[in-house]
Amino acid sequence: MQRVATAMIFQANMSDPRPIGVFDSGIGGLTVVKALRDLLPNENICYLGDTARVPYGPKSAETVQRYAIELAHMLMQKDAKVLVVACNTVSSVALPLLANKFPVPVIGVIEPGARAASQATRNRHIGVIGTRATIRSGAYEKTLRATHNNVRVSSRACPLLVPLIEEGLLDDEVTDQVIARYLEPLVADGIDTLVLGCTHYPLLSGAIARALGGEITLVDSAQNCATAVQETLDGQSLRSPAAERGELDVALTDAADNFLNVARDALQLSFGDIELRPLP
Amino acid sequence: MQRVATAMIFQANMSDPRPIGVFDSGIGGLTVVKALRDLLPNENICYLGDTARVPYGPKSAETVQRYAIELAHMLMQKDAKVLVVACNTVSSVALPLLANKFPVPVIGVIEPGARAASQATRNRHIGVIGTRATIRSGAYEKTLRATHNNVRVSSRACPLLVPLIEEGLLDDEVTDQVIARYLEPLVADGIDTLVLGCTHYPLLSGAIARALGGEITLVDSAQNCATAVQETLDGQSLRSPAAERGELDVALTDAADNFLNVARDALQLSFGDIELRPLP
Repeated sequence: MQRVATAMIFQANMSDPRPIGVFDSGIGGLTVVKALRDLLPNENICYLGDTARVPYGPKSAETVQRYAIELAHMLMQKDAKVLVVACNTVSSVALPLLANKFPVPVIGVIEPGARAASQATRNRHIGVIGTRATIRSGAYEKTLRATHNNVRVSSRACPLLVPLIEEGLLDDEVTDQVIARYLEPLVADGIDTLVLGCTHYPLLSGAIARALGGEITLVDSAQNCATAVQETLDGQSLRSPAAERGELDVALTDAADNFLNVARDALQLSFGDIELRPLP
Repeated sequence: MQRVATAMIFQANMSDPRPIGVFDSGIGGLTVVKALRDLLPNENICYLGDTARVPYGPKSAETVQRYAIELAHMLMQKDAKVLVVACNTVSSVALPLLANKFPVPVIGVIEPGARAASQATRNRHIGVIGTRATIRSGAYEKTLRATHNNVRVSSRACPLLVPLIEEGLLDDEVTDQVIARYLEPLVADGIDTLVLGCTHYPLLSGAIARALGGEITLVDSAQNCATAVQETLDGQSLRSPAAERGELDVALTDAADNFLNVARDALQLSFGDIELRPLP
């Protein structure tokens, strides 16, 4: 009896019912939530989108770092067991800072995406698309070079894709033209793998795949981020003990606009009322 | 001698060398600065763009009001003699609040644009385009109805125009397609006058005029705002006494991105180094 009880306590200590905290500059990070829901259905998830200050893409590194710390604090108040930075802009400039500042694992979208691209490429020539800030930071390029010798990286900022997605033009000829214009130089350059380096972009993965034809492998950083979260939870015995489906709570720093409906419908996510958490 | 001196003092009191304070959520308000420079070349102008939190369009009225008060305070620290709200979103939700809070005249872009449209329309059917927040606020509609009996207003939010402008696609077939799609229902509806209800839009006035043909009068709210500023300065004896060209100082709450160059080139504005004024 004594031994069974000890084993049960031990097993209870090997799991963790606290939620996964996910944040983004806005709504785009829900693509990561969708990937997490599919992969880890019994985990509770608290999502926080900084819709009061979206987008982060054009903002300076210092400003993005300050905002990221504020959001991480707000998720720690929800007792998050891990912080998922579902935003390429934040992941590119604030990850070491967050990892130093908070006592839980911090997982971004860049390293998992870069790792998957390194594994996928055959000709060692990888394309990366993202916001102007992500591309300017060179974060994917640095990470790809660190994980793969002799890799060649062609990057392109695509600032119109986020507004087109937020307008709901996921399947539209204007969007197709803009995508074609952005991707043509990368294809001409000879990439065989393309990293979707913005959490909004998985919502356009169909249109992007059409534009590329079948020859180029798409790397979805949302999916790869979810896989990295799973590995971290497993490695640190942080998986939820629950048998039933976890809760998904969505909080925003300002009232949601039309894009929340676009994302919810396109991702087939279900969640209750949005909690409004105004910034101090 | 005594009478001459008195007259000189009197004349000095009838003019005011302090700067005109202009603010916007970002860079778009420079179209108002351009119109002010053309109309009132000897006035000093302090421009403040909230690039750290742009765009305001998708944010709630409460948040926009809070930001507007912060920006107005920053311009009052520069000794502004008048506050020009070069932003339709702010003008639509925060003008009475600002007018109550600050001891100088506050001039927005909506009332001047609505007045000009009322004067221009012949069939009493006016179109308005703007950001989602401006259109949702119904501010132009209310102001037009207050200035003109029996006016009919057809409004349309055009959320993609700002990103297209900021990407520098001022003369581009994708932009032309998006404009055509936004304007078609308004033209079909029978408008004879169209208000450009966003301070970015004057940068597309050429493309918009092409899309409309010659039958529809374009009302540029930046130009009409500048005219209203001139009337206020004249009416309250606040014109600058300077004979030479005034200074233009541009300050931003975060580092400028590519759009500052787009706007400066398209508007042929000249100004020195940007002052960075981080938010508290």
